[in-house]
Amino acid sequence: MRESMLSEIGKYIFNPRSIAVIGASSDRKKELGGGWVGRLVQFGYEGKIYPINPKAETVLDIKAYPSVSAVPDDIDYVIVSIPSQHVLEAVKECIAKKVKVVHVYAAGFSEIDKEEGKARQKEMENVIHSGETMVIGPNCLGVYSPKNNLSFDIRFSKEAGTIGFLSQTGVGGRKLVNLANERGLRFSNVVSYGNAIDLDGPDFLEYFADDPETKEILVYVEGVKNGRKFFTTLRECTKIKPVVLLKAGLSKSGAGAAASHTGSLAGSREVWQALFRQTGVIPVQTLEEAVDQLVAVIDVPEIKGKRIGLIGRGGGFGVIASDLCEAHGLVVPRFCDETRAKLAELTPAEAGSSVRNPVEIGLGRRGLSEYYAQGVEIVGADPLIDIIITYLNPEDYLHYGLGDWADAVSRELVKVVKNTSKPFIVSFMQGRNPQVFELILKIQDKCQEAGIACYSSIENAIKAASKLADYYEFRNRERKR
Amino acid sequence: MRESMLSEIGKYIFNPRSIAVIGASSDRKKELGGGWVGRLVQFGYEGKIYPINPKAETVLDIKAYPSVSAVPDDIDYVIVSIPSQHVLEAVKECIAKKVKVVHVYAAGFSEIDKEEGKARQKEMENVIHSGETMVIGPNCLGVYSPKNNLSFDIRFSKEAGTIGFLSQTGVGGRKLVNLANERGLRFSNVVSYGNAIDLDGPDFLEYFADDPETKEILVYVEGVKNGRKFFTTLRECTKIKPVVLLKAGLSKSGAGAAASHTGSLAGSREVWQALFRQTGVIPVQTLEEAVDQLVAVIDVPEIKGKRIGLIGRGGGFGVIASDLCEAHGLVVPRFCDETRAKLAELTPAEAGSSVRNPVEIGLGRRGLSEYYAQGVEIVGADPLIDIIITYLNPEDYLHYGLGDWADAVSRELVKVVKNTSKPFIVSFMQGRNPQVFELILKIQDKCQEAGIACYSSIENAIKAASKLADYYEFRNRERKR
Repeated sequence: MRESMLSEIGKYIFNPRSIAVIGASSDRKKELGGGWVGRLVQFGYEGKIYPINPKAETVLDIKAYPSVSAVPDDIDYVIVSIPSQHVLEAVKECIAKKVKVVHVYAAGFSEIDKEEGKARQKEMENVIHSGETMVIGPNCLGVYSPKNNLSFDIRFSKEAGTIGFLSQTGVGGRKLVNLANERGLRFSNVVSYGNAIDLDGPDFLEYFADDPETKEILVYVEGVKNGRKFFTTLRECTKIKPVVLLKAGLSKSGAGAAASHTGSLAGSREVWQALFRQTGVIPVQTLEEAVDQLVAVIDVPEIKGKRIGLIGRGGGFGVIASDLCEAHGLVVPRFCDETRAKLAELTPAEAGSSVRNPVEIGLGRRGLSEYYAQGVEIVGADPLIDIIITYLNPEDYLHYGLGDWADAVSRELVKVVKNTSKPFIVSFMQGRNPQVFELILKIQDKCQEAGIACYSSIENAIKAASKLADYYEFRNRERKR
Repeated sequence: MRESMLSEIGKYIFNPRSIAVIGASSDRKKELGGGWVGRLVQFGYEGKIYPINPKAETVLDIKAYPSVSAVPDDIDYVIVSIPSQHVLEAVKECIAKKVKVVHVYAAGFSEIDKEEGKARQKEMENVIHSGETMVIGPNCLGVYSPKNNLSFDIRFSKEAGTIGFLSQTGVGGRKLVNLANERGLRFSNVVSYGNAIDLDGPDFLEYFADDPETKEILVYVEGVKNGRKFFTTLRECTKIKPVVLLKAGLSKSGAGAAASHTGSLAGSREVWQALFRQTGVIPVQTLEEAVDQLVAVIDVPEIKGKRIGLIGRGGGFGVIASDLCEAHGLVVPRFCDETRAKLAELTPAEAGSSVRNPVEIGLGRRGLSEYYAQGVEIVGADPLIDIIITYLNPEDYLHYGLGDWADAVSRELVKVVKNTSKPFIVSFMQGRNPQVFELILKIQDKCQEAGIACYSSIENAIKAASKLADYYEFRNRERKR
């Protein structure tokens, strides 16, 4: 990384004072429907905007200029949104203008399966090296910085949070932000950087590792050029901040697909798996899993070990949950005698109750059992248990009429968490009933607000808990060194 | 199995002419809310019903009797729904009455963590061996036979289908039927048989293997006593019918949980994994996966190999999908030259299209691309491809206003399947948006009607396709022997 680039990224990439858009449209509807000036305006960007269009007087009532060189002031950030064959000229102009950052939105470079694309990227590389301008892209969506009212998608949350996210891919990264936003997760800054002709994953990673507003880091890469730097930065970073890593293109065919997506050299599965192990990142395989993992990272307190206490109704579900725990590297131990004795006192010894681990106490027939909260408390007090996972099946209560079930259950869960000393994770069984779907959403939203990690399946909950336990184990071992 | 038991199961268990309920309640509301007479009446059972209650004149307006021996006629099937300490007497009476089948609903036997339960079960075993009466249970829900209007849950579909399902667990089995019903799947017969004091998994398996109305078999076991018979029956059965097997209690802790759930000896993971390999069953881990697998078994035509053609929009999703394919044992090969040439002709060479595998053609910006159907057809014609999996992301189209999107897309998908010679599987990305959830349901329902296998995530689609390919590979190898 060039000297002082860390501060330059924070200053010019995530918080530029001015943005020019090369390829702005004079067609109002088009610009508002998906143009870059339209996005800036609609997301409330407060800096100066310079639409660049040789034929337009104004774009969305903002004075337009025929070229960046025609703009009378300095420009921090330029978005290049024109066909690939004209990009090189535009970038040259930006360098001449001493623009701080160029974001090349346009695709058609090393990711396409033709010599002309690769040649175009090579040529651009040469041009960039001659100047001081930082380049993001090509073939990417650029920046989302909620606290600076800057976003490549106007549907994103305007609320700022603590997740720093670097995404090589555009559409996938956007979807990830959407999924995370829906789960109540908020970002400090996000960058989609595509083919990484200049700024690459390791640069942004280093920035987020250093950034005090970023408490967790999400990385979505297909490949990195400077693998050594990526490795060492990750290794240092995980000692202070958890890093969730979605590495796409691990397979042979996936690597081929990555080459034609972001022009990346994906690297072999073995190399990456060694990196996962040695850096202490939390590896995930899909967008959904990435979000599930972030929820655990943010909402679950430090996990001290891998011994799970399972609580729910339905003995069969308990057996399956135990199997899943073991398959994912967790342990479902026998409770200590005191716990068993207390549970035996608490629950009636009849069909549908068990004082073993998994404990069979549901939320009661009509939603709330008088035994539930106490049961969780007893299990939480067991010195042999590190985490509690509960599994609920709202569909089973539907025919009793649910009324204020969501309110009652979420109130109970919030109370339970308060009275329990151990990390507590909630999972729901989802069916295909829209009523149940919305009911679960409602409970999850309330739990989310209270900082309780909620999952749509017991398997997802177990996976996330297990990987989080791995992370803390790694971190604490590293810190002791 | 006793001589002629196969026909006895079909005759007396799934289609009894008369049913007595020991433990029927004279409280109308209670009986309708969850009593066994209530269930029979509400599900439309057409045989004779004999409520047994020493203190009642009638139950739901049906003449009651003080005991089974007081019933003047023969009884095919008796449901025992009284506290465990009185069950033995009731079973003895049934044997004396020469009842054909006794279903012991009551729990409190070998599954409870106390000597008294185990002793009670042992005692009952001795009693059973003295008579000709077949016993289902204890600790189970019994029978669901839609064509005979018989069900342990009145919410189940009244439509009969082709899946034969034997479930050791009650609540889990019920949930599985619910989940399957919601996906449009229908059953020939279902039995929940719990602790298996007499009739065990292998007995029902043998029945379903032989039953012409059963085309696919679903097995949900925690343990079996006669492992040898189970193994040989499975091995024969998979040559003619696919068997989806959910074996719960594979882990050490799961096995402990199984012991306290259905009193099963769960067996070691190694033994079961050898059974999976050698019998050609399709093993699954959760209820949701079982249903996903059944959908593939029923709706996907025979898969000839493991080479996948992937089609969707979003290069990043394609990379992840490729990784998942490889992780699940599938291959994403390079298309043959002819396919690539045809795809290159079809799709414009710009951002968001690729003629490699995965192919990037979505359903178009507004839902339907004019290239989509043709693209699938071209890929389907490639001799290097065995299955096509497509991934759709309806949320991305939401802001265009979806209107009749569901209709248009499902019409297109139905057309696509007709014109494609290869198995074609559809997957959707699900978010947390209720509008998207319902939209996907709507498309899935329409696809389901047309016999197209639909999944709520690309990973689930890939998993199901891979295991189905394994099954056909196994079956064809076995048949050639």
